[in-house]
Amino acid sequence: MRNSRRGNVDPFIVMDVMEAARAAETAGRHIIHMEVGQPGTGAPQDAVRRLSADMSRDPLGYTVGLGLPELRARIAQHYRDWYGVELDADRVVITAGASGAFLLAFSALFDTGERVGLGAPCYPSYRQILKALDLVPVDMPTTMAARMQPVAADVIAHDLSGLIVASPANPTGTMLDIDAMRALADACEATGAAFISDEIYHGLAYDGRAVSALEVTDEVYVINSFSKYFSMTGWRVGWMVVPRDQVRTIERLAQNMFICPSHASQRLALHAMECGADLDLNVDVYRANRALMLAELPKAGLGKFAPPDGAFYVYVDVSDYTYNSVKFCAQVLEKAGVAITPGLDFDPVEGHRWVRMSYARSTEDIREGLVRLTAFMAHREAVV
Amino acid sequence: MRNSRRGNVDPFIVMDVMEAARAAETAGRHIIHMEVGQPGTGAPQDAVRRLSADMSRDPLGYTVGLGLPELRARIAQHYRDWYGVELDADRVVITAGASGAFLLAFSALFDTGERVGLGAPCYPSYRQILKALDLVPVDMPTTMAARMQPVAADVIAHDLSGLIVASPANPTGTMLDIDAMRALADACEATGAAFISDEIYHGLAYDGRAVSALEVTDEVYVINSFSKYFSMTGWRVGWMVVPRDQVRTIERLAQNMFICPSHASQRLALHAMECGADLDLNVDVYRANRALMLAELPKAGLGKFAPPDGAFYVYVDVSDYTYNSVKFCAQVLEKAGVAITPGLDFDPVEGHRWVRMSYARSTEDIREGLVRLTAFMAHREAVV
Repeated sequence: MRNSRRGNVDPFIVMDVMEAARAAETAGRHIIHMEVGQPGTGAPQDAVRRLSADMSRDPLGYTVGLGLPELRARIAQHYRDWYGVELDADRVVITAGASGAFLLAFSALFDTGERVGLGAPCYPSYRQILKALDLVPVDMPTTMAARMQPVAADVIAHDLSGLIVASPANPTGTMLDIDAMRALADACEATGAAFISDEIYHGLAYDGRAVSALEVTDEVYVINSFSKYFSMTGWRVGWMVVPRDQVRTIERLAQNMFICPSHASQRLALHAMECGADLDLNVDVYRANRALMLAELPKAGLGKFAPPDGAFYVYVDVSDYTYNSVKFCAQVLEKAGVAITPGLDFDPVEGHRWVRMSYARSTEDIREGLVRLTAFMAHREAVV
Repeated sequence: MRNSRRGNVDPFIVMDVMEAARAAETAGRHIIHMEVGQPGTGAPQDAVRRLSADMSRDPLGYTVGLGLPELRARIAQHYRDWYGVELDADRVVITAGASGAFLLAFSALFDTGERVGLGAPCYPSYRQILKALDLVPVDMPTTMAARMQPVAADVIAHDLSGLIVASPANPTGTMLDIDAMRALADACEATGAAFISDEIYHGLAYDGRAVSALEVTDEVYVINSFSKYFSMTGWRVGWMVVPRDQVRTIERLAQNMFICPSHASQRLALHAMECGADLDLNVDVYRANRALMLAELPKAGLGKFAPPDGAFYVYVDVSDYTYNSVKFCAQVLEKAGVAITPGLDFDPVEGHRWVRMSYARSTEDIREGLVRLTAFMAHREAVV
């Protein structure tokens, strides 16, 4: 059968690692999973119990396209509680995960062939969703000096119709402070580029909280999700805050492209927002894991990493050992039984000398993973 | 902020009716809902109970992009059970509702500016999703003689890159028999157009079962959902069967555009597939409702309708009374307290003289709605 050009998006290189890890486990080996981008925990148990009760008494049919009004209102309150930002609930849109938010945002903002800037490295799906919509992802190299985040000069230099930033970022964990965020928002406003702020890792910061783009401007699409801090990956529910003049456009697109996000997932999200104490226990685990990573990785010779401000990743420069991060990760899996992610999915140009390590799982797993990595590095053969 | 041209999709005209119905209810009026496209029932209670048990013991994180392997296998079995079609489970893709399937299918198949044919009237979101992806929906008028379905000559005449058919169709309920289905598949194959068969209303046919496009060809994207027969609208889970050579493309797109469909919804779907006896009771209700509609509508002077083979709609030609179906529906709501849908969302050209009536709710509601409609028609003032 025929195929489109735009549908021919890149495969995930990490899938080969994950497949190899699965094969190793099937063969009886014990593998430590530092490749995964999701919490090991599920949704808060209290929230799950409340959803079970909802399910037994409500058919949970379609909601309106923009999502449950009470969830939109609760999220507006969340911005008051976390950021001191006053936000009209009408500007909050519930989405089918951050993924659904990207599809809506890109469709509402950009026409075929328009250029959207990304700081490399970044979440791989930005590029692939843009390509699938016949848009042009523009990778902008970042520097350690700028915390591996894009800067205002990039926006001006690259003739962009839009800019996507993420803070804390995947795969680096680095954050934008309020001045950096404002400079990017100003550069977008000055050049007429749409400003999109991916805040999916908010709540997972270990040295002061992350700044929301809504603290510096209303002229932004802020995208967030219940997958990370709220530990609800498989439920596929997230949200987006858009400028007031964008709400009707997004509503029409959402009605047609999604009808609505999962009703049950929206209910669970509403319940999960009352489970902050439970969720903060998860954050304590990540904090302990991160401390282990920062203490042990340098001892293993893996100390060249981006400033790991938040999320649950460390992005390590392994160019002292290899320029083939795919082969390096394969060897780490084979010899050490630790699954980690080559950088190429995040950065097709420089990713050959970087790897991403996730510390989203249990502290025991992370401790064991670090022991194995340290032993591997001490005895590794040269990798070319 | 900036906006794309393609994001400027049409509003749903029915939303005004629904808003007026809500306002009337808020003001204390009793409204019969014959405008809605969803079952009044929820998911089967047994399935809901089993999902509650799953939720208490499994974090329900991400599934793989193509969906739970056991659900894909169960759907393959469903094709054996319902249609006698042998289907490799590898060709089954679980999606975020039929909506998610359309986004994947259109992205995989069509490039910017390509023309995709639709038999008018049809499900409005086909057109809007195509527009949002910068594709060109081509409305092809249908005739009562061809059961308001497209015919092979349309495919050849309109220079199409793809064709979407639906059987049973929304808003008409009409079906394609196996010869009509084969003729369309052959016409697509002959012209190189991609063939997409929306089978979301399968299981809701009252005079013999609906034909799946998979009975006549493997060169088709078949799209289905758990929303209608399986009564799981708000759970946003569906499926797609694609040709073998399309699976990898769809997998990459799905991983990037959706990560996965809701894990809980996939589990519920798996459980619901074992609840056929419960679900067939819902079909019995629709069957009784349909019999009432077919008996009473002609008596009310609303007997010019498309052959209502399946789904839960009757699409009525009201041109004896009005050429303004929007105004007609507003009057029916105001005077009779019955919410019905003007045809314009389904057919921008001819819909001004058609209305859609849904019989998805309880039999008592349908009986009361028909009494009210009959009284309204007997005493109505002229509508221009």
